[in-house]
Amino acid sequence: MHRITNHKEIIDKIYEEIITGDNLGAPAGYIPELAKVDPNQFGVYFMSTENDTYGKGDWQTKFSIQSIMKVLSLSLAYQMLGDSIWKRVGVEPSGSAFNSLVRLETDNGIPRNPFINGGALVICDMLLSQLKNPLFDFLSFVREVSGSDKVYYNETVAQSEASVGYRNIALCNFIKSFGNIDNDPNEVLDFYFHMCSIEMDCQQLAHSFEFLMDGKFRTKNGSSVLNLSQSKRINAIMQTCGFYDESGEFAFKVGLPGKSGVGGGIVAVHPEKYCICVWSPNLNENGNSHRGMKFLERFTTETELSIF
Amino acid sequence: MHRITNHKEIIDKIYEEIITGDNLGAPAGYIPELAKVDPNQFGVYFMSTENDTYGKGDWQTKFSIQSIMKVLSLSLAYQMLGDSIWKRVGVEPSGSAFNSLVRLETDNGIPRNPFINGGALVICDMLLSQLKNPLFDFLSFVREVSGSDKVYYNETVAQSEASVGYRNIALCNFIKSFGNIDNDPNEVLDFYFHMCSIEMDCQQLAHSFEFLMDGKFRTKNGSSVLNLSQSKRINAIMQTCGFYDESGEFAFKVGLPGKSGVGGGIVAVHPEKYCICVWSPNLNENGNSHRGMKFLERFTTETELSIF
Amino acid sequence: MHRITNHKEIIDKIYEEIITGDNLGAPAGYIPELAKVDPNQFGVYFMSTENDTYGKGDWQTKFSIQSIMKVLSLSLAYQMLGDSIWKRVGVEPSGSAFNSLVRLETDNGIPRNPFINGGALVICDMLLSQLKNPLFDFLSFVREVSGSDKVYYNETVAQSEASVGYRNIALCNFIKSFGNIDNDPNEVLDFYFHMCSIEMDCQQLAHSFEFLMDGKFRTKNGSSVLNLSQSKRINAIMQTCGFYDESGEFAFKVGLPGKSGVGGGIVAVHPEKYCICVWSPNLNENGNSHRGMKFLERFTTETELSIF
Amino acid sequence: MHRITNHKEIIDKIYEEIITGDNLGAPAGYIPELAKVDPNQFGVYFMSTENDTYGKGDWQTKFSIQSIMKVLSLSLAYQMLGDSIWKRVGVEPSGSAFNSLVRLETDNGIPRNPFINGGALVICDMLLSQLKNPLFDFLSFVREVSGSDKVYYNETVAQSEASVGYRNIALCNFIKSFGNIDNDPNEVLDFYFHMCSIEMDCQQLAHSFEFLMDGKFRTKNGSSVLNLSQSKRINAIMQTCGFYDESGEFAFKVGLPGKSGVGGGIVAVHPEKYCICVWSPNLNENGNSHRGMKFLERFTTETELSIF
Repeated sequence: MHRITNHKEIIDKIYEEIITGDNLGAPAGYIPELAKVDPNQFGVYFMSTENDTYGKGDWQTKFSIQSIMKVLSLSLAYQMLGDSIWKRVGVEPSGSAFNSLVRLETDNGIPRNPFINGGALVICDMLLSQLKNPLFDFLSFVREVSGSDKVYYNETVAQSEASVGYRNIALCNFIKSFGNIDNDPNEVLDFYFHMCSIEMDCQQLAHSFEFLMDGKFRTKNGSSVLNLSQSKRINAIMQTCGFYDESGEFAFKVGLPGKSGVGGGIVAVHPEKYCICVWSPNLNENGNSHRGMKFLERFTTETELSIF
Repeated sequence: MHRITNHKEIIDKIYEEIITGDNLGAPAGYIPELAKVDPNQFGVYFMSTENDTYGKGDWQTKFSIQSIMKVLSLSLAYQMLGDSIWKRVGVEPSGSAFNSLVRLETDNGIPRNPFINGGALVICDMLLSQLKNPLFDFLSFVREVSGSDKVYYNETVAQSEASVGYRNIALCNFIKSFGNIDNDPNEVLDFYFHMCSIEMDCQQLAHSFEFLMDGKFRTKNGSSVLNLSQSKRINAIMQTCGFYDESGEFAFKVGLPGKSGVGGGIVAVHPEKYCICVWSPNLNENGNSHRGMKFLERFTTETELSIF
Repeated sequence: MHRITNHKEIIDKIYEEIITGDNLGAPAGYIPELAKVDPNQFGVYFMSTENDTYGKGDWQTKFSIQSIMKVLSLSLAYQMLGDSIWKRVGVEPSGSAFNSLVRLETDNGIPRNPFINGGALVICDMLLSQLKNPLFDFLSFVREVSGSDKVYYNETVAQSEASVGYRNIALCNFIKSFGNIDNDPNEVLDFYFHMCSIEMDCQQLAHSFEFLMDGKFRTKNGSSVLNLSQSKRINAIMQTCGFYDESGEFAFKVGLPGKSGVGGGIVAVHPEKYCICVWSPNLNENGNSHRGMKFLERFTTETELSIF
Repeated sequence: MHRITNHKEIIDKIYEEIITGDNLGAPAGYIPELAKVDPNQFGVYFMSTENDTYGKGDWQTKFSIQSIMKVLSLSLAYQMLGDSIWKRVGVEPSGSAFNSLVRLETDNGIPRNPFINGGALVICDMLLSQLKNPLFDFLSFVREVSGSDKVYYNETVAQSEASVGYRNIALCNFIKSFGNIDNDPNEVLDFYFHMCSIEMDCQQLAHSFEFLMDGKFRTKNGSSVLNLSQSKRINAIMQTCGFYDESGEFAFKVGLPGKSGVGGGIVAVHPEKYCICVWSPNLNENGNSHRGMKFLERFTTETELSIF
């Protein structure tokens, strides 16, 4: 069984190749605030189960985690509600774009998985019903799993997204029309847009996924986030559904469970081995970071360390 | 990193629990020949990279491998044609049933992946153009990877399937109408139905997947079937697309790359660790072996050995 | 060319047969206010180009016109904006239920026709941009075409519908996400729900469609609502799209252009001959009045006066 | 009620305008034989219930009637089997292209209407079960309704179409897989391709639709083709479904029931008034004759004689 011992050299090498190469794509244009980000930023943070860590480039710059939050909200809901959550959201890849409404119509309002927007809205709705102070409590959870108190919502981004989030408003009300949203759609959406607006740097984000890497994570007060079986299952969903309509391509080329966000961040996990976060704002046509995808493909090829 | 040392005890235990429990579902009814199989048969064969092997129950009884052949035909085409095959077939999960035509219409005749019937037909078409004596050459390949000369087509099953294979005839002609089938659809279909009719037992089938387990397999004459990167990629496709519309569920519950067939067989691979073949004819509503799915879910839970 | 001379006898006869027969279906249940209506009410009002008129049963009882308003809003938009409206909405039958979102996704937010909800919302949006005092101006228009000042919005119904109108909220925001709604979706929806809440009796409603019957209608101040070509075209759209997914069935069995609403009303027009309004609250599975459909089928069969 | 008295002048005038204008589009390219036809041919034939007739341009040149045959096969099946045919085919517009398979999948193999290819194949299958000598009997029927013995199949066109008819082969086998085709798909397809290959000129074709114009037609031996109610219903289906995905547009602009074929022919009927056949090989993007559509739009506008 391989261990990476030369991860620094490999990261340095691939990083150089990529940063000196093209920087195709563009930042997410539909959210005014995100469109302003400098597209040339590029950060990487690596951590292993043996406590090797290595940051490269803009790894300490915060960015909007966007859809990556879906892994964290799912984990919290899974912890609080157990397998009952799967009555309201599936675990199958959607075969469609992240904000498609088509499948929902044939599936009677049960989103295919928790990582398409519809599924994440249903998870939001569950948390809204469970948490006393949803915004405060969720942020506390994120701070705990990231091991950092310096994690915040970006109110401007949340508002920016709400102001143009017609597709998400449509999705949420559509699911509500099938009875699979309990709360007021406007409240669910407000919570959702705030969650997406959370900002972290590569290091914080990689640490937030530590419990999916080793299945042993415990919060400061000692309570485990998820049991081993649950964390394996979330990894499985990330593998099959983490990159929207490019999930198969990511499995094919990178071979790791992971999750991307339109802020340009990607976190990928090699269970029991390592966790890696990359960030670069320019997105490819599927809404995933251009340089991030490239970096991870090269990284698993060089290290021969995919899960397959 | 875990090794299974007590695989026999675990297999014995789970096997007993399942064989004494219910046997829900029914054999594939649409193929007359398959409907006649005794549904109470249940076999398991395990093999590890360390040459541990163990067979249980009806592991030496031959059955129709059906769609499991798609992994073998893909491997042969990949070996012969390299990455050019991905121009004609995708690697994304379909989000639809195995014989759905819907996606093909929006995707202009490019099947979503090589494991839905449409994709397998395109792979068949490639092999038909490449092989001198398609039926003979493909069988030779299968014999080589399985390490057994006692592998045959079942002409009766092939004819039985051809006689009612309207959906596959539709699929093949539909793809031809988009120009993504080069040969005469009738020849492609004949080849396809023959491939599906191949019969193997659990042991032969597990051995056929050995090159996906260790990525090192060489045929008797020394030529490698696939390089490491290629075998990893086929594992990735099995993970995301191997169980039709239950692929996400399988990843979620079992956590291994694998492939099922309507004959009731399933092969699953834990890269660099083990390969396992289970067989029981009764199928669940998604066309996957009821007892086989159950066995594998229990097996990875007990051994804590999924890839996630 | 036939003229109906014995319309009273025919109406009396069919009315009796139907009112003494079954009264299948149920009033629209999803709008709380409409669910309260007495389902045994049944009214008919007939008027011809030769000024024969005849009312039967509950023809003077007001009911919620609901989607029938879509013909009036379309007519007003067509009058004000001419053929430019067809850039934002099509004239093809949808082949789907009235509130389906599926087609919109493939058609980039251009609703198939102005009588499915999405199309009616786009027409609403046009009027909202054109009218100074939208609610007041639209009501004035309806009063003029109906020839009656006693036509009102029902604020309770409008609120009732808004409170559960998640599907319409979804539709409007979905179309907005494609850029085919100019105004704030909430304002468009408020206008839409008010329009649907208008109440009329059979007589008022039949008169409102007079300009589609003879193409000669002039408002009190002498301005024509639509020119002949325009009124013919609206009739054509009613013919092909007026009854959602039952439009073909209606053409097949009744053979007249017409429009139904979930309040149980139906107006049908035989160009240059007559106009007829029927109302009965119980709806069939396609959302059209059960008794109304039956009455019209019998009426055109008895009179041999369909357009075909 | 208008009568056309100056139809010759109007036809002459519009014909001249159109033949001196552009000739956009191209003949059906996918059928090798049809692609060879001279695209500049343009014929018109008019006949009224008062026995006025007028031919213009290439009205005596034979062309491939293609899908126009669907009206004749439907009429024969309706005559032989009555309303039982509607159990196997619907009367709703499809909202999709003529050869789409998508709807069939959700509708369990029941084609939406008899004028999309799938529906016409089901009608063919019915006739195949009913007729003693299908090819001979159908041709006899066509000769009788057209009033001409000089009507033939074009064997070359039938073969030409069969040789590339993958989409129709797919459709027929797909429907068979749902159990809605009784005979061998290959026989159904052979019959279908022959029917499409029938050649007529504008005059013969207009006469073939006479029974839909007056509902009184009798064959030479005195038996009526359809009763009044049945012929009205076929007109209604032509109105809503006769032009594939352009049916609404045709109703909107022309306002007559009609049927087009990819050979460039269109027949339109004004019940109780007139019947008109136009032919010009260049097709628009929806597969309907470019000049034919233009002519009919102008003709109903000038005469103010649409059914609406």
